[in-house]
Amino acid sequence: MGGRCETMIDEAIHALEERDVALARSVMKADKQMNRDELEIDELVVRILALRNPVGRDLRFAVTSSKVVIDLERIGDEAVNFSERVVELIEAGPLPAPANDLPEMGRLANQMLRDALDAFVTEDAKKALTVRSQDDPVDEYYGQILRAAERYMTEQPEHIRQGMNLASCAKYLERIADHATNIAEMVVFLVRGEDVRHPKNQ
Amino acid sequence: MGGRCETMIDEAIHALEERDVALARSVMKADKQMNRDELEIDELVVRILALRNPVGRDLRFAVTSSKVVIDLERIGDEAVNFSERVVELIEAGPLPAPANDLPEMGRLANQMLRDALDAFVTEDAKKALTVRSQDDPVDEYYGQILRAAERYMTEQPEHIRQGMNLASCAKYLERIADHATNIAEMVVFLVRGEDVRHPKNQ
Repeated sequence: MGGRCETMIDEAIHALEERDVALARSVMKADKQMNRDELEIDELVVRILALRNPVGRDLRFAVTSSKVVIDLERIGDEAVNFSERVVELIEAGPLPAPANDLPEMGRLANQMLRDALDAFVTEDAKKALTVRSQDDPVDEYYGQILRAAERYMTEQPEHIRQGMNLASCAKYLERIADHATNIAEMVVFLVRGEDVRHPKNQ
Repeated sequence: MGGRCETMIDEAIHALEERDVALARSVMKADKQMNRDELEIDELVVRILALRNPVGRDLRFAVTSSKVVIDLERIGDEAVNFSERVVELIEAGPLPAPANDLPEMGRLANQMLRDALDAFVTEDAKKALTVRSQDDPVDEYYGQILRAAERYMTEQPEHIRQGMNLASCAKYLERIADHATNIAEMVVFLVRGEDVRHPKNQ
């Protein structure tokens, strides 16, 4: 499911860079499988909990999995949203200049996702903590693209819709980075939670 | 935690209607408790699973709880985002006309949340299914406010920032409605999932 997300993001960015409407539309279709994946994983988690009564780290891993799939499914949604705006942007004419920063921003967000998923499967809290620090450059890109979109709209109010689509694209990528950060935070909860029966605050 | 969400949304809307910056700022602070709630509930779920080995409906209720808190925590985030934009909108001067529809849109979204939470605690799938149908008027408001914001920016490009804040406010409310819908869908999974060990597709 994580791999599917990474591919969807890659392809959505590629669609923007290459002005490839067909590729953008294929990303929109990939989302259906994601929704099926989420249900399937949820069933699997409930089944494992019911039949195996896992404890300790295994129990946490199962519960965390059912939470991680929520973020993955929503990353899929954001990739679809992004692709829809890409189609609108392409069909409206040449891309406005602030769009040039979107691919790099998207690649950074996708790297965060990759690292968060690596940290999850290897249960590596240290790696998970590096994901949060990667969020700063993504946020900087976000602010930068947003300001550029606002300037663009102020100067060319006849292209408000283009500017709004641009801002939305940046917003969707920022949310993908947020979801990656959420996953990373769950990994910390997963790895550090072994003292659950002896919480420090009691 | 759900009650806290409802209050945050109510207060955020009220802050907009009454141009009450202090109230908007107090919503921003309420979010901290939400984050603590989420961790606490997660710990509780893991503890119940470990110590009580619940099965059937109880097991599903526990797993669903740890998923519902994600949506609640993010509804809190959206209420904070909304409040931040409200402060910017108020400080920039008189509210643009399309802002007039935001309170009603917010109240509809909050009603969806209330119904989804009711359906969750009473495990009422029928009620949960009514939540999805309530999403249509919210979506209509969203499209309407977005188009009005675009017209406003086209006509008054010197107020692009105001228009963007307006569009963002509508987006945050739309997301709150989405989270409520997610919770409602989880309730359906919770109630109908009793046949988990005999899935129809096998």
